[in-house]
Amino acid sequence: MTGQPLLVDQHCHGVLRSGPGRAAFEAYLSESDVPAAPGTSFFDSQLGFAVRRWCAPVLDLAPHCPPEEYLDRRAELGTAEVTRLLLRASGISAFLVDTGLPGDLLTPAELAEIAGAEAHEIVRLERLAERAADAARDTNAFLAEISDGVRESVRTARGFKSVIAYRAGLDFAPQPPGTSEVYAAADRWLSSRVRGSRLSDPVLLRHLLWAAVRTGLPLQIHTGFGDPDLRLDRCDPLLLTDFVRAVAPYGTPLVLLHCYPYHRGAGYLAAAFPHVYADFGLSLNHVGARAGAVLAELMELAPFGKLLFSTDAYGLPELYVVGARLFREAVAATTGAFTGSGAWSEEDAARVTALLSAGNAARLYGLAPAH
Amino acid sequence: MTGQPLLVDQHCHGVLRSGPGRAAFEAYLSESDVPAAPGTSFFDSQLGFAVRRWCAPVLDLAPHCPPEEYLDRRAELGTAEVTRLLLRASGISAFLVDTGLPGDLLTPAELAEIAGAEAHEIVRLERLAERAADAARDTNAFLAEISDGVRESVRTARGFKSVIAYRAGLDFAPQPPGTSEVYAAADRWLSSRVRGSRLSDPVLLRHLLWAAVRTGLPLQIHTGFGDPDLRLDRCDPLLLTDFVRAVAPYGTPLVLLHCYPYHRGAGYLAAAFPHVYADFGLSLNHVGARAGAVLAELMELAPFGKLLFSTDAYGLPELYVVGARLFREAVAATTGAFTGSGAWSEEDAARVTALLSAGNAARLYGLAPAH
Amino acid sequence: MTGQPLLVDQHCHGVLRSGPGRAAFEAYLSESDVPAAPGTSFFDSQLGFAVRRWCAPVLDLAPHCPPEEYLDRRAELGTAEVTRLLLRASGISAFLVDTGLPGDLLTPAELAEIAGAEAHEIVRLERLAERAADAARDTNAFLAEISDGVRESVRTARGFKSVIAYRAGLDFAPQPPGTSEVYAAADRWLSSRVRGSRLSDPVLLRHLLWAAVRTGLPLQIHTGFGDPDLRLDRCDPLLLTDFVRAVAPYGTPLVLLHCYPYHRGAGYLAAAFPHVYADFGLSLNHVGARAGAVLAELMELAPFGKLLFSTDAYGLPELYVVGARLFREAVAATTGAFTGSGAWSEEDAARVTALLSAGNAARLYGLAPAH
Repeated sequence: MTGQPLLVDQHCHGVLRSGPGRAAFEAYLSESDVPAAPGTSFFDSQLGFAVRRWCAPVLDLAPHCPPEEYLDRRAELGTAEVTRLLLRASGISAFLVDTGLPGDLLTPAELAEIAGAEAHEIVRLERLAERAADAARDTNAFLAEISDGVRESVRTARGFKSVIAYRAGLDFAPQPPGTSEVYAAADRWLSSRVRGSRLSDPVLLRHLLWAAVRTGLPLQIHTGFGDPDLRLDRCDPLLLTDFVRAVAPYGTPLVLLHCYPYHRGAGYLAAAFPHVYADFGLSLNHVGARAGAVLAELMELAPFGKLLFSTDAYGLPELYVVGARLFREAVAATTGAFTGSGAWSEEDAARVTALLSAGNAARLYGLAPAH
Repeated sequence: MTGQPLLVDQHCHGVLRSGPGRAAFEAYLSESDVPAAPGTSFFDSQLGFAVRRWCAPVLDLAPHCPPEEYLDRRAELGTAEVTRLLLRASGISAFLVDTGLPGDLLTPAELAEIAGAEAHEIVRLERLAERAADAARDTNAFLAEISDGVRESVRTARGFKSVIAYRAGLDFAPQPPGTSEVYAAADRWLSSRVRGSRLSDPVLLRHLLWAAVRTGLPLQIHTGFGDPDLRLDRCDPLLLTDFVRAVAPYGTPLVLLHCYPYHRGAGYLAAAFPHVYADFGLSLNHVGARAGAVLAELMELAPFGKLLFSTDAYGLPELYVVGARLFREAVAATTGAFTGSGAWSEEDAARVTALLSAGNAARLYGLAPAH
Repeated sequence: MTGQPLLVDQHCHGVLRSGPGRAAFEAYLSESDVPAAPGTSFFDSQLGFAVRRWCAPVLDLAPHCPPEEYLDRRAELGTAEVTRLLLRASGISAFLVDTGLPGDLLTPAELAEIAGAEAHEIVRLERLAERAADAARDTNAFLAEISDGVRESVRTARGFKSVIAYRAGLDFAPQPPGTSEVYAAADRWLSSRVRGSRLSDPVLLRHLLWAAVRTGLPLQIHTGFGDPDLRLDRCDPLLLTDFVRAVAPYGTPLVLLHCYPYHRGAGYLAAAFPHVYADFGLSLNHVGARAGAVLAELMELAPFGKLLFSTDAYGLPELYVVGARLFREAVAATTGAFTGSGAWSEEDAARVTALLSAGNAARLYGLAPAH
């Protein structure tokens, strides 16, 4: 990776400690939660093709080798070795890990050690509340636990993450809920919930958002596509406009994750509001060979100091490699087109590449100067 | 067409048996229902340019010849000969024909014979109901006729088509209407309608959709742009999300037609739900020289086993030629860009081209193995 | 500019008579109304890069020179000389100037003289009403003043402009408000307003729109992105569909300004309705090196006789240069791609370029035949 800028993955999840088996591997290539349609395979997608293109060579196979051959080689090497090879090959120098997803996953520290990189935690707000609910004796204890958990996170983590897009959609009331409203909602939820169940009460979701906003740490918000429990049309980041305005006096950075296919609207928010940032996230991995085209669209309105790289990798170490390679290729292709026509200078292209790769994330999350 | 994959046009309409005259010809180049603005011509559009580019050579004229010259040659050859030349030149090997549009049009069997291809019927649900209403003595007879018509279609047709987008928008209630609700709506409609009038009652439109869903045959749904009686913002396929979920237990394939400019959202639905498919349809014809750019966007999230070719051709045989040529050019340009950068292998590109051209449609509609 | 088609800027604002200073200069590069985020600069955006690329050479600097160097040179030359050099270099032959923005700006006549071009006025409806309110003794006088002002504008101006998008969003009631409703709204507004305050009453905004529609002069409507007081999701031009239908019987041309990121929907409206036109406006300046990509998307559905060039330049003379150069580059790149693949002929490309550059605007606004 000599000569390449550092790469900060500002939003990802852990890697499976063991497995997955063949069927499960294919499932990780799709946001769908059921098997592929009869006669089709999740390997026949941009992400599937990108895994064969970019990961096969890391495992000493020919690029584009058939899925069966790839899975055979994976089984032969074993999970630990595959994970080590792929994470090292990703070229990522820092991970910001949302630790709120289920599964037997490597911790941020383990990820860092295996990858030869640094790792920091991002606290998922809904998970924090669900854990508090599992532990709390009563409503007061639950709310205190949330409050303490958020305060404690400021010490231990680099930011927060919200999945209110999945649980309630982004068209939520923009103002903080009142104290008695929060108490009543907590009471209602705690008295009816089954242990381990998900938080989807909109009042409590907003309470969490505002608790995070008040800390001033960057707040990552899922927007755009994801798995089938969301309604994509309720995940347009523009639905957050009034919330963005309400947060403005606090200055807390809001990081719009993924954004696709509403990334141009996300670019507008990043241009119009100083505290809004936008991320390529999940989108680049899933559009594969089209990553350059999508990244170029986000580079229309968004100021270059406001764009961030991430992989959103979850489960498979392959997703780090693919995310990093697609991003590097996409930035090179896009800025190459700009310099090729004379619209940009080479110096500007190099400087913007460094900002998107690591500089913006380092500034935003307070990472070490090397970043 | 040697060496080219077969081409299944999975959604089209008939060709005019005679005419059209000059003014009418121009009207078929636009989705508008009134003449072009003063000082402008419908020929000055991507579709107009594409007709001159791709059809003029079939009639032994230079590509891009002036509209007048093209219309002169058309008149000289006569409708029958023009139709024969163009349909043969389209390279389409199978047509799935929505027979529900008005006009003195060739039947599927005639289309097949002239084109030297096969043809199958797609039943337009609203037309089926309007015919039933014209014939029925009373409400019971009307509802029985719909029920019989749908059942009979399973034997004679390859799928259904709905234009609920035009009649009520796609933000309809996702669940099947109850029996008494349907009866009351039918009663109301039959007692107030004028013979030949259109069905736009949302309860009856939903009743038709669900009658089709229960058969398990593929159900084509108009989404995205079309002529000016629709409100385009009510035709975003994402508005169908809850309907898509309600249909999931039945496994009935839902085919989203056209989709533009919401095709990326359609790609998401095709990725997230195994029973959802997406079609390029109308879009490629109307964006002409931009067909490659639009097709590439639909190839971002949609799995390659879920994408379908169609022309939506109606009235003019030119629209088959243009649809087929633009599609072939667009697929070649898009996959060529992917292989050129090394992102895809040549083998994968050829395989995906065959899937989009004919393989997916053949699997979905149960066409003969040659497809 | 020999050999290049004329260029009609169909929507722009005045140029500052003096200044701006350094900080203010940077602010004109963004639609944001507050300083750039810590550690970032508005120069690090597509528009900032485009100013350095296209304006630096006009001031005898190297393309892409650093912002400091550019601002030094600007200060050295002085506002008057900078304005003269840049306006002359823009190659714009006619300006249609919305005179309703605040600031010490050059008048259309001054702009014309400095640029060696012609200039015409576009009347901003909300400003007309606000001036009437500042002057009026009572409600009757206020409404009479609006009526007179609109009638007078037909004699003095080439069209009207509405910013209802900013004040109420585009999802307004499509029909003209009734007389008594207008009277009551005027009464309410006049009795509560502070002198100099903005009009945002939706009834009065609609009353203005309809007063303009009844004159038959082209009516420009802001759609799509702009500064942060709008909610972008309420500025989708498709929200105007029912208004477009209501206006159809009058035949009054409606010109959709800017449109981004909803420009494909604007293209649909321009294709579906003879009285709808679409403009590239603000969008090209702000997407800079991506202007070709965005312009190409608007050239998908919109008929070529319905597309218009503008700069939306405000304050800085640089914005005329950038708008004109980006437009010329974008059209050349887009039509060059179309002719390169054989999809379009060279003759058609030249003809469409002339239509977009000046021909459509000349026809629409009744400019002299040289246009």
